[in-house]
Amino acid sequence: MTAAKTNPGNFFEDFSLGQLFAHATPRTITTGDVALYTGLYGPRFAVQSSDEFARGIGYPRSPVDDLIVFHTVFGKTVPDISLNAIANLGYAECRFLVPVFPGDTLSAASEVIGLRENSNRASGVVYVRTTGRNQKGETVLEYVRWVMVRKRDTLAAPPAPVVPKLAERVDPASLGRAVPPLDLSGYDFTLAGAPHRWGDYAVGEKIDHADAMTLEEAEHQIATRLYQNTARVHFNQHAQAQGQFRRRLVYGGVIMSLARALSFNGLANAFHIAAINGGRHVAPSFAGDTIYAWSEILETAEIPVRRDVGAVRARLVALKNRPGADFPWKTASGADAEGVVLDLDLWLVLPR
Amino acid sequence: MTAAKTNPGNFFEDFSLGQLFAHATPRTITTGDVALYTGLYGPRFAVQSSDEFARGIGYPRSPVDDLIVFHTVFGKTVPDISLNAIANLGYAECRFLVPVFPGDTLSAASEVIGLRENSNRASGVVYVRTTGRNQKGETVLEYVRWVMVRKRDTLAAPPAPVVPKLAERVDPASLGRAVPPLDLSGYDFTLAGAPHRWGDYAVGEKIDHADAMTLEEAEHQIATRLYQNTARVHFNQHAQAQGQFRRRLVYGGVIMSLARALSFNGLANAFHIAAINGGRHVAPSFAGDTIYAWSEILETAEIPVRRDVGAVRARLVALKNRPGADFPWKTASGADAEGVVLDLDLWLVLPR
Amino acid sequence: MTAAKTNPGNFFEDFSLGQLFAHATPRTITTGDVALYTGLYGPRFAVQSSDEFARGIGYPRSPVDDLIVFHTVFGKTVPDISLNAIANLGYAECRFLVPVFPGDTLSAASEVIGLRENSNRASGVVYVRTTGRNQKGETVLEYVRWVMVRKRDTLAAPPAPVVPKLAERVDPASLGRAVPPLDLSGYDFTLAGAPHRWGDYAVGEKIDHADAMTLEEAEHQIATRLYQNTARVHFNQHAQAQGQFRRRLVYGGVIMSLARALSFNGLANAFHIAAINGGRHVAPSFAGDTIYAWSEILETAEIPVRRDVGAVRARLVALKNRPGADFPWKTASGADAEGVVLDLDLWLVLPR
Repeated sequence: MTAAKTNPGNFFEDFSLGQLFAHATPRTITTGDVALYTGLYGPRFAVQSSDEFARGIGYPRSPVDDLIVFHTVFGKTVPDISLNAIANLGYAECRFLVPVFPGDTLSAASEVIGLRENSNRASGVVYVRTTGRNQKGETVLEYVRWVMVRKRDTLAAPPAPVVPKLAERVDPASLGRAVPPLDLSGYDFTLAGAPHRWGDYAVGEKIDHADAMTLEEAEHQIATRLYQNTARVHFNQHAQAQGQFRRRLVYGGVIMSLARALSFNGLANAFHIAAINGGRHVAPSFAGDTIYAWSEILETAEIPVRRDVGAVRARLVALKNRPGADFPWKTASGADAEGVVLDLDLWLVLPR
Repeated sequence: MTAAKTNPGNFFEDFSLGQLFAHATPRTITTGDVALYTGLYGPRFAVQSSDEFARGIGYPRSPVDDLIVFHTVFGKTVPDISLNAIANLGYAECRFLVPVFPGDTLSAASEVIGLRENSNRASGVVYVRTTGRNQKGETVLEYVRWVMVRKRDTLAAPPAPVVPKLAERVDPASLGRAVPPLDLSGYDFTLAGAPHRWGDYAVGEKIDHADAMTLEEAEHQIATRLYQNTARVHFNQHAQAQGQFRRRLVYGGVIMSLARALSFNGLANAFHIAAINGGRHVAPSFAGDTIYAWSEILETAEIPVRRDVGAVRARLVALKNRPGADFPWKTASGADAEGVVLDLDLWLVLPR
Repeated sequence: MTAAKTNPGNFFEDFSLGQLFAHATPRTITTGDVALYTGLYGPRFAVQSSDEFARGIGYPRSPVDDLIVFHTVFGKTVPDISLNAIANLGYAECRFLVPVFPGDTLSAASEVIGLRENSNRASGVVYVRTTGRNQKGETVLEYVRWVMVRKRDTLAAPPAPVVPKLAERVDPASLGRAVPPLDLSGYDFTLAGAPHRWGDYAVGEKIDHADAMTLEEAEHQIATRLYQNTARVHFNQHAQAQGQFRRRLVYGGVIMSLARALSFNGLANAFHIAAINGGRHVAPSFAGDTIYAWSEILETAEIPVRRDVGAVRARLVALKNRPGADFPWKTASGADAEGVVLDLDLWLVLPR
């Protein structure tokens, strides 16, 4: 009887291709969430920080940070998709499509688009396409995620393997929809913190974001609960003490937000994440780790018909306990370099 | 002269039967408080999480979590009632009477309804009935609390002992006043996280809430300050290092809120605490403790004239460093079981 | 190329007399900031806590805590003024001029008003006058700060030394501009927490604020990021482990806010800081330190033409790991007493 009331989460064999999930709990985003996000990561992008700045260029007010939207939608998927996950393997085709403002209510839905059992038969990879919607039914965010999920029963028959074909990167033609037409005469580059526009970034340029943040247990727990993410590995030291790492794991989204906030120092006018082309949590982070970040410009692109903003594709790398001054990424053999914890491939939007 | 300006708190002999307190500091509750509450405990009840969900069933917007109201009112009483408390002994006859929304301002008042000196003559028990009011003067909450308070002078004469007769449980006929008439056609059980309605819970049913949270010093301090609760044992490690436990004590309300948030997993549609029939902080909790919770259904009741919602009476037990899977509560001899830190008797409201 | 994008901060030789800075990032203050400020410090002044209380005496709603304004403006100056600071030496002539409400957007500008190289030629003192403005262009705050800043090149030629003459204390005639005309018939001293008015404080009176707060890393980091203050010493344990103190330093503003919140117990009706006449961070504080505070009344003054409020000048002393009961301040030789971490000279406004 008890089991019928408590959600044990889905195991690999509970998923089927084409399966749809309408995730619980819708959540109204408020200026309270924005303040707490600021306290947890310290972002300084002017568009999200100042209603006046945002209004001066054509927003009705400051939109909330793109990653608040991402984490909120992601958090809703956890009880259905990844409560029994071993590892969050990657993201692709993530686009931010409509700006989100305080007062908007977000909900999330997912479709299973791929399944592949692992050769050890103890787990498998689940691919889902998740969409976040606002109270008007507009899709504000969509992304694909794949995650390694435990099997309940290793003897359960495997599904026919289906691995979706995912775009290597989001097409620039589909970027920037969450940015209204901007009046750049109102964009004060001094107040925004740096003079560099879209055209000032060159492919191959590497930027050490210089600053760093040491993580505390209370910080990552508060952040992760704020997104109503219930994954147990982040919260239960009593159980984690018996596990592989002996301690709580930091939700990977915390590292994403820290790296993004640190990237202000060098990318101050890249005020919007238009897309996440790909992302990997390369290694786990723990309380006490100090997170550094650096970026490399991979590509620049015009956005069709837009003269106000352009797109810069950047690799954003987060490191733990290692400065980014020498831009660590891969070893000579192609392995992830020592200290790398996050490898994100982003489309950023900047004023032209 | 200094003593005249600093509040030393009241000692047992300062209280008299019938004494009235209008407690300082009124407090306007905002969406900022709601966000911080979410970050600290991770509640997921849809009515409190989504303005759209709340409006869809008949609220003007999301009410704030019932325990925000409880803790805010409770916090105001501390400087007058329990600054010199040894232990918070119990609660009874607690009812939530009017919904509280962001923007409402809460104030608190108490009446001394009982006094009984302890046989050691060093302390006594003070019983107060506390009411919380909103800016319109409506009583939003009332409850009885009893607390063991130090005497200033062990030689002070004891008062005539008066122990109030308290109801064993709140009468179901008086429940649900904080819930407007609901249009359940708008209640989406999928978005709410579970299909179980009032009628799906049976007396004797036990539910392991499965999830758990490890407490950090920063978390319980931030929570307790948010309610403007000034009890020193929660904040002053320099002094606590000399005390019985050598460390800061976690405010019992933090455990109440954690257990309540954990109870979502199994009681997802029990969106409102209508009453606290009784409650005891069985043992102290400290930073580093991991809190688990389970519930037992004690009683179900219709609420007179209401067809929209019904009441379920549940024992909500919080444990530290011990999972709830085997439902620990009492030993064979009737003592509190190892690990139990909180024993709450609640009336919960669910859709029918 | 990288260096051109990342802000390395200014070194002593980068400053020149009369130099003007329009600091990045404007910031809209919200009720979310207020809630987080309450959670971090626990202030209880009724005017800032209750919209109803504030409206009852003539404010349109609760103004935000004065130190939220101070820290927000201060934080903006860090990337330009003190990223390479060795020590924040002092404040003077700080006045709060216009009340700030949730929804207001603050920006900051500074002028260099003094420069003096140190005799070791490795650093120098920079004096700036900083102004904070709201979205209407009104100056809400102004103050002078001096800070010791590293030289990039010890061989760089020193500037002509200019040390500004600063007022010993702000003239009472210029106080109280951020307080609208008050209707004190609406000021409920019971709800405010104490009966003591302006006339009840006497020069020479000392008040032990009795309460204390132990600092946690997560708390001071969240606070400091909330103000978008990027000074590295507060956040980077990996680098600090190699430094003089082996650990992160707590932003001095956190100590200011804790001491101010503690001062409620004895100064409950001193609801507004009108001016900071001077201030010194006497010694660094670290996570784990317990902060106590006491005040001494230095002066009382009428504010010209105002019959509603008067000013009390107080020394607010914060201590670490030492209670304030014996009012530690200076040793017989005039040195700072053991445990003193903050020495503030304030003009406070109280009802008459």
